[in-house]
Amino acid sequence: MNHAAAITPAQLLAGDRRALARAITLIESTRADHRRQAEVLLEEVLPKTGRSLRIGISGPPGVGKSTFIEAFGRHAIAAGKQLAVLAVDPSSRLSGGSILGDKTRMSELSRMKQAFIRPSPAGLTLGGVARRTREALLLCEAAGFDLIIVETVGVGQSETAVAEMVDLFLLLLLPGGGDDLQGIKRGIMELADLVVVNKADGDLAPAAERAAADVANALRLMQPLHKSWSPEVLRCSALRDIGIDHVWDRAQAFATAMGASGELPARRRIQAKAWLWHELSDNLLETLKAHPAVAERLVELEDKVAAGRIAPASAARQVLAAFLGG
Amino acid sequence: MNHAAAITPAQLLAGDRRALARAITLIESTRADHRRQAEVLLEEVLPKTGRSLRIGISGPPGVGKSTFIEAFGRHAIAAGKQLAVLAVDPSSRLSGGSILGDKTRMSELSRMKQAFIRPSPAGLTLGGVARRTREALLLCEAAGFDLIIVETVGVGQSETAVAEMVDLFLLLLLPGGGDDLQGIKRGIMELADLVVVNKADGDLAPAAERAAADVANALRLMQPLHKSWSPEVLRCSALRDIGIDHVWDRAQAFATAMGASGELPARRRIQAKAWLWHELSDNLLETLKAHPAVAERLVELEDKVAAGRIAPASAARQVLAAFLGG
Repeated sequence: MNHAAAITPAQLLAGDRRALARAITLIESTRADHRRQAEVLLEEVLPKTGRSLRIGISGPPGVGKSTFIEAFGRHAIAAGKQLAVLAVDPSSRLSGGSILGDKTRMSELSRMKQAFIRPSPAGLTLGGVARRTREALLLCEAAGFDLIIVETVGVGQSETAVAEMVDLFLLLLLPGGGDDLQGIKRGIMELADLVVVNKADGDLAPAAERAAADVANALRLMQPLHKSWSPEVLRCSALRDIGIDHVWDRAQAFATAMGASGELPARRRIQAKAWLWHELSDNLLETLKAHPAVAERLVELEDKVAAGRIAPASAARQVLAAFLGG
Repeated sequence: MNHAAAITPAQLLAGDRRALARAITLIESTRADHRRQAEVLLEEVLPKTGRSLRIGISGPPGVGKSTFIEAFGRHAIAAGKQLAVLAVDPSSRLSGGSILGDKTRMSELSRMKQAFIRPSPAGLTLGGVARRTREALLLCEAAGFDLIIVETVGVGQSETAVAEMVDLFLLLLLPGGGDDLQGIKRGIMELADLVVVNKADGDLAPAAERAAADVANALRLMQPLHKSWSPEVLRCSALRDIGIDHVWDRAQAFATAMGASGELPARRRIQAKAWLWHELSDNLLETLKAHPAVAERLVELEDKVAAGRIAPASAARQVLAAFLGG
């Protein structure tokens, strides 16, 4: 498949869906020539990126992420937005599938011309998925999408990776409180700019209220991440479309406040620099691991370090000598 | 100063304080020959390390960390422990001083022969401070100290670095609750195995109770980090020595539970491997930054990336080509 021949920057900038889909396939490819083509394409469309609101969404299994994204996306599209939904799901590398592979999960959005849904790239580590998703996000912006949702399934460090590429991090929670353990992964609550308790209707309304109160108390203990925004706790029912309009309003309010204070552009500059350093570090370590004189030695030394038979600094020096010296 | 001539592994293993102090000075040195001597020394004493309980302690300014460490240390020493106190304080590189430079901060401990107090190394970045502190921790263990406290002042990412080198992370908090913002840095609560509300006496007792209840609620929302230990919230008054014995008991209970389940040795193996990868990554990036063909280019590309004029992946590829190609 010759991707490059098929995609011109002009097609992408004109919002051609097929060109966008193929451009994302190109950036997901690990072939060296595809990589180079992808870089050229990204370079050319880069000036047309950055004009979207980037929202990361996470939550425990069963919280209703797809239903929420459908309802939230509907409101955004009604407000005139063009929505792209991307996923960061490193678990898909195990199955070769993806949380978003089945488009019936968001059947309504997937039929709308103002929405673009893309499954998580398979066969990559978290670092690889995150890198490709960042680039896919830029391509979607170049194609005119002005609201990007990056969904994460809550595996390991994927939330941190997502938080590093979005403007607003939204955490979905289930009703419940007191002794109903939510099982919120450690380290996720602190990333949230908006916490939304879903399924807050009918019999579950009181439990949703309790959960919202507990989370509000927990958030009050912590220093806000931003000067111009303190995290808020909201309730909604995505299934019945209750409260979704308010979530959309607060997301807009976040963008307005963070934009006016200059914190949003500052955050993006910091994210871009951090991305460069991740790229450098990941690439260096990959090059190191692929080095013939290093690979075998590394496995052996890693085991010795874990067993406490060699100090990490000594092991590192030996590996680096083999890598840089040879 | 010829450090190597002055320190033999035998002196260190015999618990000679002066040898330990000089060995730590040696590992803190950035001179290449000192570095090599330090590695040899660490290699020789490594089999005698790992026999301590490693506790990380953090908390907001004014919480009474030194007073707590004095009181806690007194109980540990009364229970037969040999205590070493190290500090991770990257802010000391600004002043050239250190939070523990003034030993009068822990005047009682500093006079006891069962205690060893060492200030944070100055003039290093957080990565450098953390690396040296990890090595100092091993040296203290080799010298016979079986309780190591690593104190952090709560600057930026220092808590994460400390959590990665200790068995138990203890967070000290002030009394207060409801609208009395504690200003707990985001991401710290999730690291805690024990949360201790200090100054829980006299007029502040009710506020301490409120703070403890709020934190207990917040912790209940999150998944525990370990299978054999759920975080606990305790109250104490370090100044009046109230409740410190209980904190000591619970620290012991943590070590017993995590040791019996095998989680503690497993955690240490994971920490050692992570340390190796930090060393590799830090060293590679330092080598890269020091490379003449790279240094200037890097500054320029970093600015362009932040300004959105070049994609991070392209910038990274250019830097790596200059580094690995030349």
